[in-house]
Amino acid sequence: MNTINIKELSELVNGELIGDTSLLITGPEQLERAQSSHISFIGNRKYIKLWNSSKAMAAIINDNIDLDPEEGQALIRVKNADLAMVKILEAFDPGQPQLESGIHATATIHETAKIGSNCVIGAGCYVGKDVVLGDNVFLYPNVTILDETSIGNNTTIWSGTVIRERTEIGSYCIFHSNVSIGSDGFGYRPSDDGRGLVKIPQIGNVVIGHQVEIGANSCVDRGKFSSTVIGDGCKIDNLVQIGHNSVMGRSCIMAGGSGLAGSVTLGDGVIIGGSASIKDHTTVHSGATVGGGSGVMSDVAAGKTVLGYPACDSKDMLKQWIALRNLAKN
Amino acid sequence: MNTINIKELSELVNGELIGDTSLLITGPEQLERAQSSHISFIGNRKYIKLWNSSKAMAAIINDNIDLDPEEGQALIRVKNADLAMVKILEAFDPGQPQLESGIHATATIHETAKIGSNCVIGAGCYVGKDVVLGDNVFLYPNVTILDETSIGNNTTIWSGTVIRERTEIGSYCIFHSNVSIGSDGFGYRPSDDGRGLVKIPQIGNVVIGHQVEIGANSCVDRGKFSSTVIGDGCKIDNLVQIGHNSVMGRSCIMAGGSGLAGSVTLGDGVIIGGSASIKDHTTVHSGATVGGGSGVMSDVAAGKTVLGYPACDSKDMLKQWIALRNLAKN
Amino acid sequence: MNTINIKELSELVNGELIGDTSLLITGPEQLERAQSSHISFIGNRKYIKLWNSSKAMAAIINDNIDLDPEEGQALIRVKNADLAMVKILEAFDPGQPQLESGIHATATIHETAKIGSNCVIGAGCYVGKDVVLGDNVFLYPNVTILDETSIGNNTTIWSGTVIRERTEIGSYCIFHSNVSIGSDGFGYRPSDDGRGLVKIPQIGNVVIGHQVEIGANSCVDRGKFSSTVIGDGCKIDNLVQIGHNSVMGRSCIMAGGSGLAGSVTLGDGVIIGGSASIKDHTTVHSGATVGGGSGVMSDVAAGKTVLGYPACDSKDMLKQWIALRNLAKN
Repeated sequence: MNTINIKELSELVNGELIGDTSLLITGPEQLERAQSSHISFIGNRKYIKLWNSSKAMAAIINDNIDLDPEEGQALIRVKNADLAMVKILEAFDPGQPQLESGIHATATIHETAKIGSNCVIGAGCYVGKDVVLGDNVFLYPNVTILDETSIGNNTTIWSGTVIRERTEIGSYCIFHSNVSIGSDGFGYRPSDDGRGLVKIPQIGNVVIGHQVEIGANSCVDRGKFSSTVIGDGCKIDNLVQIGHNSVMGRSCIMAGGSGLAGSVTLGDGVIIGGSASIKDHTTVHSGATVGGGSGVMSDVAAGKTVLGYPACDSKDMLKQWIALRNLAKN
Repeated sequence: MNTINIKELSELVNGELIGDTSLLITGPEQLERAQSSHISFIGNRKYIKLWNSSKAMAAIINDNIDLDPEEGQALIRVKNADLAMVKILEAFDPGQPQLESGIHATATIHETAKIGSNCVIGAGCYVGKDVVLGDNVFLYPNVTILDETSIGNNTTIWSGTVIRERTEIGSYCIFHSNVSIGSDGFGYRPSDDGRGLVKIPQIGNVVIGHQVEIGANSCVDRGKFSSTVIGDGCKIDNLVQIGHNSVMGRSCIMAGGSGLAGSVTLGDGVIIGGSASIKDHTTVHSGATVGGGSGVMSDVAAGKTVLGYPACDSKDMLKQWIALRNLAKN
Repeated sequence: MNTINIKELSELVNGELIGDTSLLITGPEQLERAQSSHISFIGNRKYIKLWNSSKAMAAIINDNIDLDPEEGQALIRVKNADLAMVKILEAFDPGQPQLESGIHATATIHETAKIGSNCVIGAGCYVGKDVVLGDNVFLYPNVTILDETSIGNNTTIWSGTVIRERTEIGSYCIFHSNVSIGSDGFGYRPSDDGRGLVKIPQIGNVVIGHQVEIGANSCVDRGKFSSTVIGDGCKIDNLVQIGHNSVMGRSCIMAGGSGLAGSVTLGDGVIIGGSASIKDHTTVHSGATVGGGSGVMSDVAAGKTVLGYPACDSKDMLKQWIALRNLAKN
């Protein structure tokens, strides 16, 4: 990481700098683990104790906390230490690893694929027939993109990720490691003799908007027919399952380990907590929130917060939990 | 996709064609997203409204729904629109992406591996020592098959999947992207000084029958000794965990995010709902169903349906949920 | 597998050998599946029936079980058949598959990477800029290690695994297939116009101790800043999620499908059951146990066992489950 003067950092976060204005900062660090050249964060009075025992000489501090720097220390007072932290992280961001620019000698690119300008394609990547990559697309080593997929400008795909045929991906997306896009939806019918299962062809695809981020080892299945759709700005964490023909609106959040069964519809700005699951063919309307660990079995109205298994209004679920605790005490 | 005359489609689904018999259809699509050349599905009266506003000029319709085609439209009346849909999907199925036939120049095949006729092995694949592939095995790019594994005829393995040593796989199987087969089971013993954990060797393997499908990013661990077994015709969704020495009968279904801890036994035709988990050393007997999100902690009798956490008879669990809801209201 | 005389096996497990002392054993097997040259295990009286119908001619048996070998059979009496089993597994362990030693011709190693002695790097691997591998590091085919990562001696990484930049990994670790280490933590802030989400840079890293094992398709996210930390001797099963800035002590166990949201702290020797989830910013103190399927929403005291969703003391939760069952019966 680079080194930045404490004054510059103070200006960056629009703060009031008090104490030693000559400090050179090498990066942000937690109070417990900081060395003297690090800057840390005091967003709450309870961290003052950690600050007193920390090796850090500099901190961003909420301006409602009463604390003065000692000799050699510097404090940057701000309205909101959490927001200031984001600016500090941006300042010290080393950026993503660079590869030798261009297409690595060990990558396999089908002769019909169209590659935009300034693309980087790492070692061992495969780019199939009639794939179209926009400009500045970055494929880390060992990514697989199958036939007729299109990817917009400035999208980054990390190693191990597999994008199957006919997927459509927008611009400024980030796909983390070992993601699986466009695998067959899970659909079978009983065999004619009633003794087994016959696969229903899954001939649809996946359509993903702009600025979508998908976490490591998550899966988005292709539609049975038509498309599985992820709207602009959706952010999806690790190990998330999105079943075939589900449709997500804009800027939805799905936390780690959560899942949509088939044909689920999410409105805009829906938040799904970690490890929560949504039953097939249900709709969670815009602005609704599903609490962590919940199992949603019926539609959720716009703006509502649901919780529990089976999920219901979160206040009602909390009452149920309290009632059960009291019942067991008797 | 190809183009098919509406008459042909009507014959295919054994339907009654009314309206414009000259339409050329380019594929199936949902009513909301259809263009004029698409065929859609009306399996329920509630879709008539969508049909009226759809651009689709053709639909398969259940014969108990009273609707007539307007000028230029065609309807195919059938007993069961859902079953007819499967035939339509099969008719328009573009098939899986083809690679240049044979073994790609960048694949690494151990000199002792035996490769059947008409196999396709994509770029960046690794096929290890003494591996045996049957005929028509299809490995997409960046698949890894380790030593002494055998794979039956007509099995397809998608990119990123890893099959570890000594796995036995049948014919007509499909393994989706980033699947992990044969990783070590999860077994440790306390170290002699009682302060740590020592790995128990996992020297068994995985044995998978015919016509088994395993979803993206799912895992099947090898046996501690003996085998983890998946019976013929089992269908496993994405992000499923199958612990060491579990044994599944024929034609079981495991939906997304579900899991078997170690040494679980499933009979034939067992259905495990999404995100459900089965405790180690329990048995779910033939024909039983485990509801989505359930946590099964004891054996389940044949044909029974269980639900909830901890799982019990589904009717009893529904009663518990209602009783708790009522309790909280008082 | 190799063949071992029954006498040798008896000495190995410190047992008392009775019956035919000349048997040659080809490996351990379950009673139901054993052939005549296999050795099996009778740790409980209920297995005597299986032994009577088994083809196995040899078994390890707990010395409190009254059973005599018939003609041609051999029994090894021990105090604890389960512990003896571990020694038998070690004796027959065929070891991990070997690759041609050294660096495969199709691997890509950046010219600045430092590779220790006796490393094996399989086909299609990528080792990035300034990566440092210790001695005897074993990378199976198609592993990706990005820039500035360091890996200690004798660590094994299975195929498909991706280790992102600046990760620090100790000695004698095992990473199974398709693991994702160091992906971005899941952090966003509302955009200034309030209509979308802006990514918070995740500039920290992952630090993993010695003798850590991580299961297939599991994920460990990098810190927002500072590090996500996994202590020495932790054992992590398949499909586990470890969120950014979580910190695990020594010798913790996380079973399949479990997860830590962001900034979770585990003490030493914590056990997390399968499919259990821990809320962000909570602490599970040393020696605590979280039951399978639980959802932990608040701190857990040292040595305590919690269970359920929302998790509480396991005895209280069992009381709640019983109370609810009784309530529903009325």
